[in-house]
Amino acid sequence: MAIVPVILCGGSGTRLWPVSRASFPKQFAALNDTTSLLEATLKRFTGPEFEAPILLTNEEFRFLASEQVQNVGIEGSRIIVEPQRKDTAAAILIAVLLEHRRNPDNILLVTPSDHTISALEEFNAAVRTASSSADMGGIVTLGVVPERAETAFGYLEVHDNSIASGGAHPVLRFHEKPDVGTAAEYVESGRYLWNSGVFVFRAKNGLSAFERHAPDMIAPARRAITNGANDLGFFRLARADYETLPSQSFDYAIMEKETSALTVPMDVGWSDLGAWDNVWSASETDANGVSVFGNALAVDCSNSYLRSEADGMQLVGIGLDGIVAVAMSDAVLVAPLERAQEVRSVVETLREHQAKQADEHPRCHRPWGWYETLCLGGRFTVKRIMVRPGACLSLQSHFHRSEHWVVVEGTAEVTIGDEVKLVSENESVYIPLGTKHRLANTGKLPVYLIEVQTGAYLGEDDIVRYAEAYNRSEVDVP
Amino acid sequence: MAIVPVILCGGSGTRLWPVSRASFPKQFAALNDTTSLLEATLKRFTGPEFEAPILLTNEEFRFLASEQVQNVGIEGSRIIVEPQRKDTAAAILIAVLLEHRRNPDNILLVTPSDHTISALEEFNAAVRTASSSADMGGIVTLGVVPERAETAFGYLEVHDNSIASGGAHPVLRFHEKPDVGTAAEYVESGRYLWNSGVFVFRAKNGLSAFERHAPDMIAPARRAITNGANDLGFFRLARADYETLPSQSFDYAIMEKETSALTVPMDVGWSDLGAWDNVWSASETDANGVSVFGNALAVDCSNSYLRSEADGMQLVGIGLDGIVAVAMSDAVLVAPLERAQEVRSVVETLREHQAKQADEHPRCHRPWGWYETLCLGGRFTVKRIMVRPGACLSLQSHFHRSEHWVVVEGTAEVTIGDEVKLVSENESVYIPLGTKHRLANTGKLPVYLIEVQTGAYLGEDDIVRYAEAYNRSEVDVP
Repeated sequence: MAIVPVILCGGSGTRLWPVSRASFPKQFAALNDTTSLLEATLKRFTGPEFEAPILLTNEEFRFLASEQVQNVGIEGSRIIVEPQRKDTAAAILIAVLLEHRRNPDNILLVTPSDHTISALEEFNAAVRTASSSADMGGIVTLGVVPERAETAFGYLEVHDNSIASGGAHPVLRFHEKPDVGTAAEYVESGRYLWNSGVFVFRAKNGLSAFERHAPDMIAPARRAITNGANDLGFFRLARADYETLPSQSFDYAIMEKETSALTVPMDVGWSDLGAWDNVWSASETDANGVSVFGNALAVDCSNSYLRSEADGMQLVGIGLDGIVAVAMSDAVLVAPLERAQEVRSVVETLREHQAKQADEHPRCHRPWGWYETLCLGGRFTVKRIMVRPGACLSLQSHFHRSEHWVVVEGTAEVTIGDEVKLVSENESVYIPLGTKHRLANTGKLPVYLIEVQTGAYLGEDDIVRYAEAYNRSEVDVP
Repeated sequence: MAIVPVILCGGSGTRLWPVSRASFPKQFAALNDTTSLLEATLKRFTGPEFEAPILLTNEEFRFLASEQVQNVGIEGSRIIVEPQRKDTAAAILIAVLLEHRRNPDNILLVTPSDHTISALEEFNAAVRTASSSADMGGIVTLGVVPERAETAFGYLEVHDNSIASGGAHPVLRFHEKPDVGTAAEYVESGRYLWNSGVFVFRAKNGLSAFERHAPDMIAPARRAITNGANDLGFFRLARADYETLPSQSFDYAIMEKETSALTVPMDVGWSDLGAWDNVWSASETDANGVSVFGNALAVDCSNSYLRSEADGMQLVGIGLDGIVAVAMSDAVLVAPLERAQEVRSVVETLREHQAKQADEHPRCHRPWGWYETLCLGGRFTVKRIMVRPGACLSLQSHFHRSEHWVVVEGTAEVTIGDEVKLVSENESVYIPLGTKHRLANTGKLPVYLIEVQTGAYLGEDDIVRYAEAYNRSEVDVP
């Protein structure tokens, strides 16, 4: 019995702003922990029963996903790049088709990557139960024993006594997100589970479910694979074909129509960390209900979440009750925990105000590493840049700016005009305006450098690319 | 009638942390305005009746004080440097003695520099009334018509009806800071004024008051002047003599014992901005009582003060009521306004935790300009440096670090070893470890540069000074 984890990590939300942003969604962030939610998800499926995972993500996050797979030390994973954001049905169908080609009996364990689980042993037991059912042909959803009348999740309705007893049970019905009263009735009744979004089934049973309930999706999904291409370690689905697929959730397209769906109830400290109040609930608190992360000091506070995300940022809360305060180098959020859901609409407001903090994370991840802006002046910008071992920026030039690079760690290979030279720690180079240049790391350790740009125009679109190492169409920097 | 403003600006408090810190107290900060409290105080006394001011400050703040006097464009001011912090009696006596030597009939207007006044015309009228009384030999305190039962101020007791009528009135008694009940009785009675700490008297009447009530202070104060020295535009009092003076307030040493003291009541929107709740009260608020400063967004908030102090820092408050939130590049404070007084003790706690944010401001002011740390790495530090026109750093070298300087605005004169050269915008220089170097601005505009330090030890005490331009004994950087 080979289980292939299918990790969905292309989603994007804003309710955990400022930590989570459009350019850096929460699955890539470390919350209540030092590993990211995606890394924790990957680690959950590294036992001997698991094969290397399939990750489904989009264009923008592919290098972030790849970096975090490397962090966890997983070999042989496949990262599938969706050319457009669709809902979960399309992504799961792609995984089903890919795996069906390899071995139709293999079991797929489809999971989101933006949640936490505190009771790992219990979770592993539920996965084993679900896998056994799947191995016998079942299509299984892991169901979470509800802790509260949550309105942000779908529910699974089961028979009386299903929840208390072990094993897999028939799902009587899938229910969409309920209103508060209905959610309360569900929880009260003891016959409803939260839909975790974790599905377990054999590739061939998954495929036959799509054949039964969404047969029109199959041909375009196959074409998206056939016309897709390997690209620098990613598999890129064909845009023209993938675009024709409907944007539907797997629940809506398949599970709600599946009459023989099963569920394995689990009580495993599951949280989707949907907003800061959930992050607070899932965190370790002191006797007064206070969680403190990073360089934060809570004085006489209660039921609050204080988080400093930036090096050298001291957050102080005095006498706060029921408050979330999150401090980053470029943004600070303060709100009552009970109003944490409103963060999403406030990010919309920031976007309308054209505040770059709405979507951009202070650390911008690129195929070759990342950069952070340290200082923005009228005619200059200072950035800190990290280039990964083996990585290389495109050969480029700028019309309006010169650049000074000071290497502060590692050794960079720098091309300036026709000259190629190594620049080591404590050395610097100057790239005059208009000169073709390239930055590469041919060494074994990351290179860190400080870039000082000067010029009348410092926009990120002042770039001419002569050779692009990462097949990027969008504008990347520097 | 010549009035000489005597501006006390050597104090240091922490209740407005993180904006106000030991290295940058609130009189130098811009609160609810774009000019600092000291600058606003200086501007109040630029009319034709005023002579150039005397400023009393200490060692640490003398360049800040001098910079702000220049900002206001005042010529001929005298900045007196106290070698040790004493209370107000010693500082005022020094001013009295200095002015008495010039002209014993001149009127001194002694004032703190860390408060705001919103009704300037009314204030000017009160000053004129007080000056007329002083010109007739009176020792006058400006008394503030109390707005609330404040326990943080001393009170002046006057006759019935004194407050409502114009002119100067006898002070029946000076009262120390009262408890809440007593303060409420004072305000209720209509016979008490807040002691503003603004005093008006002729130099000779001030001196005779000291002769009556604190005669022992006079000889050491005279010696502190006689043995003092002019130093780069400052007058530095002799430490050995000044140290022997008692640490007493002018109220305690003189006014409380003065039987013929007068007061001029004023209702001028006076606030000492003692803590964030006072800053909020003195600020302009919207219909919901919300004040927003800098890059801050208040969503559905009420009775709150949101302040972003850093470039590029977005502060967001949602649904806050009665909260102060202040965000800086290195520190964030969140607290109920009604607990704003506790900030002082929290700064103590930060100090115990050795958090540099307790006392150090992100922008470090130096005689030659300022610097800000942009990025602290393991073996490197990036700083932004501003050197004022005509200013010059000491000739120096470092044992453990090299420095790269990239000029981003203006032109610097750089000495490296025996070579002196001009380095302009978009040019850079490298200072190898151990090499003597000096940075100067011989131009007419400020020089801004980015400094990247690299080395195994980057402490600010790795400095050998060969020639020091500013008679500094303490360690200054770079």
